[in-house]
Amino acid sequence: MTMHETMAKTMDECVTMIKQIQHEARFNGNTDRPFWPMIVLRSPKGWTGPVEHKGKKIENFWRSHQVPITIDAKNPQESLDAIEAWLKSYNHEELFDANGKLSAELQAMMPTGDKRMSANPVTNGGYDQFRTLDLPDYREYAVKNVISGVTKHENTYPLGEFMRDIMKRNMQSFRVFGPDENTSNKLHAVYEVSEKCFWGDILPIDSDGTHLSRNGRVMEMLSEHTLEGWLEAYTLTGRHGLLSTYESFAHVIDSMVNQHCKWLDMMNREKWRRKVPSLNLLMTSTVWRQDHNGFTHQDPGFVDLVVNKKSSVTRIYFPADANTLLSMADHCFRSQNYVNVIVCDKQSHPQFVPIEKATQYCAEGVSIWDWASCEGEPDVVLAGCGDIVTFEVLAAVDILRRYTPELKVRLVNVIDLFRLSSEDTHGHGLTDDEFIRIFTADKPVVFNYHGYPYLIKRMIADRSNNLNFSVHGYVEKGSINTPLELAIQNGVDRFTLAIDALTQVATSKTQYINVINKLKQRRLVCQDYAYAHGVDLAEEANWKWPH
Amino acid sequence: MTMHETMAKTMDECVTMIKQIQHEARFNGNTDRPFWPMIVLRSPKGWTGPVEHKGKKIENFWRSHQVPITIDAKNPQESLDAIEAWLKSYNHEELFDANGKLSAELQAMMPTGDKRMSANPVTNGGYDQFRTLDLPDYREYAVKNVISGVTKHENTYPLGEFMRDIMKRNMQSFRVFGPDENTSNKLHAVYEVSEKCFWGDILPIDSDGTHLSRNGRVMEMLSEHTLEGWLEAYTLTGRHGLLSTYESFAHVIDSMVNQHCKWLDMMNREKWRRKVPSLNLLMTSTVWRQDHNGFTHQDPGFVDLVVNKKSSVTRIYFPADANTLLSMADHCFRSQNYVNVIVCDKQSHPQFVPIEKATQYCAEGVSIWDWASCEGEPDVVLAGCGDIVTFEVLAAVDILRRYTPELKVRLVNVIDLFRLSSEDTHGHGLTDDEFIRIFTADKPVVFNYHGYPYLIKRMIADRSNNLNFSVHGYVEKGSINTPLELAIQNGVDRFTLAIDALTQVATSKTQYINVINKLKQRRLVCQDYAYAHGVDLAEEANWKWPH
Repeated sequence: MTMHETMAKTMDECVTMIKQIQHEARFNGNTDRPFWPMIVLRSPKGWTGPVEHKGKKIENFWRSHQVPITIDAKNPQESLDAIEAWLKSYNHEELFDANGKLSAELQAMMPTGDKRMSANPVTNGGYDQFRTLDLPDYREYAVKNVISGVTKHENTYPLGEFMRDIMKRNMQSFRVFGPDENTSNKLHAVYEVSEKCFWGDILPIDSDGTHLSRNGRVMEMLSEHTLEGWLEAYTLTGRHGLLSTYESFAHVIDSMVNQHCKWLDMMNREKWRRKVPSLNLLMTSTVWRQDHNGFTHQDPGFVDLVVNKKSSVTRIYFPADANTLLSMADHCFRSQNYVNVIVCDKQSHPQFVPIEKATQYCAEGVSIWDWASCEGEPDVVLAGCGDIVTFEVLAAVDILRRYTPELKVRLVNVIDLFRLSSEDTHGHGLTDDEFIRIFTADKPVVFNYHGYPYLIKRMIADRSNNLNFSVHGYVEKGSINTPLELAIQNGVDRFTLAIDALTQVATSKTQYINVINKLKQRRLVCQDYAYAHGVDLAEEANWKWPH
Repeated sequence: MTMHETMAKTMDECVTMIKQIQHEARFNGNTDRPFWPMIVLRSPKGWTGPVEHKGKKIENFWRSHQVPITIDAKNPQESLDAIEAWLKSYNHEELFDANGKLSAELQAMMPTGDKRMSANPVTNGGYDQFRTLDLPDYREYAVKNVISGVTKHENTYPLGEFMRDIMKRNMQSFRVFGPDENTSNKLHAVYEVSEKCFWGDILPIDSDGTHLSRNGRVMEMLSEHTLEGWLEAYTLTGRHGLLSTYESFAHVIDSMVNQHCKWLDMMNREKWRRKVPSLNLLMTSTVWRQDHNGFTHQDPGFVDLVVNKKSSVTRIYFPADANTLLSMADHCFRSQNYVNVIVCDKQSHPQFVPIEKATQYCAEGVSIWDWASCEGEPDVVLAGCGDIVTFEVLAAVDILRRYTPELKVRLVNVIDLFRLSSEDTHGHGLTDDEFIRIFTADKPVVFNYHGYPYLIKRMIADRSNNLNFSVHGYVEKGSINTPLELAIQNGVDRFTLAIDALTQVATSKTQYINVINKLKQRRLVCQDYAYAHGVDLAEEANWKWPH
């Protein structure tokens, strides 16, 4: 790209300069793509404003950023005269007719149709050929032959294959963005159809697995800011994308996502605005798997920010495994005018359901997992929201089944966070009746949440049974821990959950005391082992749902 | 400053180069301050790691950021040999003795005392002469002769005078930081003792009120990131400061403050770490006064982020007026190892109490304002947390006194947000008994909060009387509104609060229906007037506490 720093002093000079730039560009090796000149106008600050007042410089100085002329209430005339002179300097009589209407000559200069800035397809979701993605059937990428709580798989890998084929079918309107390598996020299948976009010099050595190309459509740069800005702008043209990032560092774009939510909310109120594809954000290197990164990389609070924005533009999903992630992603790619936040870890995790059931669970948003629950009314509900914490819930249910088979236990999984909100707070909120049908009116609910537990407390604050909920989650305790050690420190592990459930259903202080003591001992053994060996006790790490 | 790009190949060359730089600096007009050379070492990525493996380049290539050599489980020998060769390349036999101890020669090279990186006073709060601020008596800067709810004053101006004199007494260890002009934040008294720091060319015209100087100690730059980084680093040296910013744009530094909280938490666990002055953040252009900026500038959610961090390092204060702000600031300047967030608007607002009472209120954190409350047990509690929203509470109490004098009303003000937390969640949390003494066990509480109302709900979730609370706050409704119009849209205005109180205490649907209807009408009149005239009805805008 060439930068012309020459100062064009007239419109004719400007046109000549653009023609020259276009001419050069044509011989610059970039003939394969349209060339858009950018004109930078540099003007003095406060240009055409008052030059000075009462001996104080204003134009082209900091005062032009303030109230340029303040009227002295006691002696207003000098200031009023200055304001009058300033406003008259615009020669309003040349601009407006006797009735105060814009003159016909200027009116004729105004652009019409798509040439109006607001209606330019580049900024108003306007390229019709791009608006609808040609989506393959997400079910074709599903993890097959899932044995619930046994089969293991990387949660994000099938999504990468799904996105590879979306990209293949929509080469001009779909991009994948990320501050990390997509390989590290297990989304590397996308490289099969497109390289990473790189405009620097590509060296011979870069052919060795670096996946670089000027025409690459995978956007990688260690700058969450830049990527979020790119994706926002890309959706404005009617195109689609997904940005995957470390959960903890999504806070880098807090302010930008905030403003995009506000912008979506405002644009929903304007009839002339066309809808744009949603801003899809995948948090995929999550708080519970930072074994080698530690405390700095543990922060699940990005969603705490998003829940404060207007409910009409915010959606937050916690798929429990690879298949629910596929179904949720498909849903998000079809949506418009939302900020969709999906939280799902990239590593290899136990899978829970085949794709048909996954689709059902995603549609329900909150589901009773019948295959892991008692029939009828339970004595206690164990609930999970988030992939890894739900797996701990499943293991806790197994513990309860083994040690206290007489206890009726229900397992609930929450994928759509806003289902917990009351109906009048968010469009996705369950009715009070549905909420009670799932969580019961009066039974204890041990709720294992992926993030900061207080978020759940605030979401269910208006539910009549909110005091029955005991919420577990991340409470800022962590370091370079093994998975189970980290879970135990924060109280989201299988043992703590089972102990909590037993403590709450016990009708006397001694009822389950033996089981509880055994579980406490086991928890301690697991902690000691992890501390001593740097890995989890194989028996617990490899635990599988045995039922 | 001079940059030497020459490559020093030996240690001797390095020393020569530093001496040369120091010599030049001495003749560079900067003889008044000590000169610290900075050495930048540029090395290949993965330097000294494996150069390549199985024909794949590693050193100085992207693979050195990964696991450099993966061991093939089926055919491990080639990889194991490569790893052995790599590790042996460090000549461990020259570094360690036969017992595996570091050789005496290398041991002798290790720095001791303050020369150790961790113990360097520059990074370990270590300059004793700076650690304690010489603070003037904050009470001397108080707004005098306060008539509660009548006297008006800029909340932040006295703080500016207080900081001016702190700076005067502690010229080497106190700085004020801000992305906005301190004049705009009404903290401009600081310019009386120090200019803004500016290292660019200072032109003759800049003598005209620009307050620029190379030696300036007021740090202004429209980059919240840079300022937060500066202040963090400054506190590490044992020095002190305050960063004031637009509340809405504090989200720009979400991620940085997050990490500082985590760092403080970690350092609290290390005995060798010296305490450092707190990171003091003042949010002073707040959500409720964005008359000319609108929706984009309305976001009180920064505190929602901070509450998720460890309670041992976080403090959040909502002073109600200028005098409580002074007292809180004095407290924060004396504190160590905290992130102190103070939320207080810069504009002219009604004042509530003289400085002695302000000091008492700050110490209590939550106070019953006896001068605005009934005696004994109330029928309803109206509470405010935040300056502007508490003023609306006061106006609502006045409405109730006038229309329903038989009703016993209590006014509670919360300055220390964490007082609402349960005792075991935060060290500042009220006991349940205290909480009930203030908010009653069973009376309705109409709570007017400065920020997103859900935050209060989550903080009181475990209180037995939490369902009695009706929380009002900012719910993302706003534009370029007048103050009262914005308050009404979000339901934090005097009328809505009074209506809510009456609705909740009514024993039948008709009991207060006439008053409620009058208030609804008045609210509508105020909204219409604001919409039509762009300013609030004078009678409401100038309302004063008449009791």
